[in-house]
Amino acid sequence: MRVTVHRKAHFNAAHRLYNPSWTNEKNDEIFGLCNNINYHGHNYELIVSVTGSIDPETGYVIDMKVLKDLIHTEVELPFDHKNLNLDVPAFKEVNPTAENIVVEIWNRLRAKLSLSLDLEVTLYETPRNFVTCSGS
Amino acid sequence: MRVTVHRKAHFNAAHRLYNPSWTNEKNDEIFGLCNNINYHGHNYELIVSVTGSIDPETGYVIDMKVLKDLIHTEVELPFDHKNLNLDVPAFKEVNPTAENIVVEIWNRLRAKLSLSLDLEVTLYETPRNFVTCSGS
Amino acid sequence: MRVTVHRKAHFNAAHRLYNPSWTNEKNDEIFGLCNNINYHGHNYELIVSVTGSIDPETGYVIDMKVLKDLIHTEVELPFDHKNLNLDVPAFKEVNPTAENIVVEIWNRLRAKLSLSLDLEVTLYETPRNFVTCSGS
Amino acid sequence: MRVTVHRKAHFNAAHRLYNPSWTNEKNDEIFGLCNNINYHGHNYELIVSVTGSIDPETGYVIDMKVLKDLIHTEVELPFDHKNLNLDVPAFKEVNPTAENIVVEIWNRLRAKLSLSLDLEVTLYETPRNFVTCSGS
Amino acid sequence: MRVTVHRKAHFNAAHRLYNPSWTNEKNDEIFGLCNNINYHGHNYELIVSVTGSIDPETGYVIDMKVLKDLIHTEVELPFDHKNLNLDVPAFKEVNPTAENIVVEIWNRLRAKLSLSLDLEVTLYETPRNFVTCSGS
Amino acid sequence: MRVTVHRKAHFNAAHRLYNPSWTNEKNDEIFGLCNNINYHGHNYELIVSVTGSIDPETGYVIDMKVLKDLIHTEVELPFDHKNLNLDVPAFKEVNPTAENIVVEIWNRLRAKLSLSLDLEVTLYETPRNFVTCSGS
Repeated sequence: MRVTVHRKAHFNAAHRLYNPSWTNEKNDEIFGLCNNINYHGHNYELIVSVTGSIDPETGYVIDMKVLKDLIHTEVELPFDHKNLNLDVPAFKEVNPTAENIVVEIWNRLRAKLSLSLDLEVTLYETPRNFVTCSGS
Repeated sequence: MRVTVHRKAHFNAAHRLYNPSWTNEKNDEIFGLCNNINYHGHNYELIVSVTGSIDPETGYVIDMKVLKDLIHTEVELPFDHKNLNLDVPAFKEVNPTAENIVVEIWNRLRAKLSLSLDLEVTLYETPRNFVTCSGS
Repeated sequence: MRVTVHRKAHFNAAHRLYNPSWTNEKNDEIFGLCNNINYHGHNYELIVSVTGSIDPETGYVIDMKVLKDLIHTEVELPFDHKNLNLDVPAFKEVNPTAENIVVEIWNRLRAKLSLSLDLEVTLYETPRNFVTCSGS
Repeated sequence: MRVTVHRKAHFNAAHRLYNPSWTNEKNDEIFGLCNNINYHGHNYELIVSVTGSIDPETGYVIDMKVLKDLIHTEVELPFDHKNLNLDVPAFKEVNPTAENIVVEIWNRLRAKLSLSLDLEVTLYETPRNFVTCSGS
Repeated sequence: MRVTVHRKAHFNAAHRLYNPSWTNEKNDEIFGLCNNINYHGHNYELIVSVTGSIDPETGYVIDMKVLKDLIHTEVELPFDHKNLNLDVPAFKEVNPTAENIVVEIWNRLRAKLSLSLDLEVTLYETPRNFVTCSGS
Repeated sequence: MRVTVHRKAHFNAAHRLYNPSWTNEKNDEIFGLCNNINYHGHNYELIVSVTGSIDPETGYVIDMKVLKDLIHTEVELPFDHKNLNLDVPAFKEVNPTAENIVVEIWNRLRAKLSLSLDLEVTLYETPRNFVTCSGS
């Protein structure tokens, strides 16, 4: 029987949504206020969900301290109190929508987890807008 | 890779649970206080989840403003500050349980979304009781 | 030194806002959708806050079970799954706005508590609209 | 079409994490503060999710009162205000990690539900750490 | 008897904390990551609390729609999806800490409310850090 | 003008409520399940609220990092993952009710804060039961 463990984390960041190959008018039409040239920002809340078998010796699917440290190194350190467009190389040429951010986080964590574990990441951009990526 | 975007919405409504083909006694036995002939009500909170591929031009699965407006037109306008039994035709002959309401909302939204998108709807009747419909 | 103890409770009810001495037009203008003749409803969440000295024998300001039972008898039983306008005598001639409901709840609880205790009541009509009455 | 109904519940309990076949040093290394010999505790919050078809007579997948009573009998009564290691036989020889607790709860509820219903249980050990078991 | 009505609102903004009369080293020492030259951001959640007497004709202390519109005009329009340092004149020479933002919001709303009403504003910079200003 | 800054923190602990000068019967009657001889536990959530003037150089009432570290040293380190009755000297002879715990926390923090600052502490024992101490 497989069990999923979930860990919450968070980071605060600025961003701006726009497509550099479009005109200003089209960017304003599609991205509205999110296209503010001076940036705006969010408290991003993150739920990382890891599914696997329970280790009979520890009773853990994954040690929550290990998972917490992994999220800290792979997500919080590079993203927290940053400008996603300017400070995070992954978004130099990729629009930092919630969808693209959650895929980037999923890829970073997937690369560090055992293949015996499944991974799903949910990212809240606001309490009303959030996204989920399970890699399928 | 497919990503799910979630949008929260809400409406406040009155309702009453009963089956008109049953006796009053059976309605009271099954529906208890929910069968109050004068109605009671809830703050319904809604999470609409749409799954699809990320559009490489926008970075969106679906424009959240489009989804927000769709929920407003299809759910909030017809349901908010209404008596579900009396004011919403779908519940003239269908008992407005959370289960039946979430199916009605799912059907309304499903009809307006591209077939390339999957849809799941979660409806909170109270913070302790909620239901989910994914159409499968 | 005085300490405040807070207890959460909740009830679900229908209501309608209107002033019977006004025209329909004025009621619609002031109360909008809240004036739906067929009622709408809410999940009312309640925080009852009682301030007093700590009893050195129990370590309690007030036994939380006593407070919970008092809220059940004075608020939940008469208000839960009710139509506030039709089923609660206090609102036969008083408009059941959040303000008037919280005053009614404050008065009911105040009458049952020792005068050595201060009382404040907060009532959430929705997660975004709430009111507080401390009797001063 | 199948619908999932979710019901929240909660219990407060003490526990200690350790493996009796390990040395104290290894227990401290793996379980850290959770290995406090005098126990610590949590407010466990539970979401029980039951999936099935809607009964056309009631509009229910399962009567929420029946589900609430089942959770009370099978989970809240045996677990609430208990020391999981000392008071709950299931954890005499099983480490009461969140993963092992959610499997125990899933097994208890699964045994009492019709086979036409699917079951998933989510258990919050803290607001930041939680686990899910769907029996697959 | 006076009653307080509370209304929640929110805006998303970027900001940077620094004192232009200090060296970079001192700014880094005091403001740490918050001094990122490229800005970071938050989902600011706001609770506006207005205290007054209940109007016996409406049952309202203040019409929630009026309060909602006031918050929209005075706070959400000028602050939402903005860079507080660059786009909001009030913070050209004032450090946009949560404390200074809540005072600015309090002053804006105070100027528009009847003197018979008391005002308190609570501003969440994150779910873990928040500030309150009641003007006293 | 004075502003209040609030910081959330948390600790998980076991406790048992009883009065050693009473009979077992009286302890069971007054404290019920909370008198379980093997202890139970809670996720205690804490809000520490500090009121003072805004420092014009920093824009802070108190540096949130300083407040966070103070709470860590004075509350989280001595209380987290502890048995309050056995591991915390303050509760060797004082019943660890929420009321007595919040007074102990208030006293610990009050001793470390400048007298120009006011202090209030709110302690959630569960999401439904919480207490506040402002030292007056």
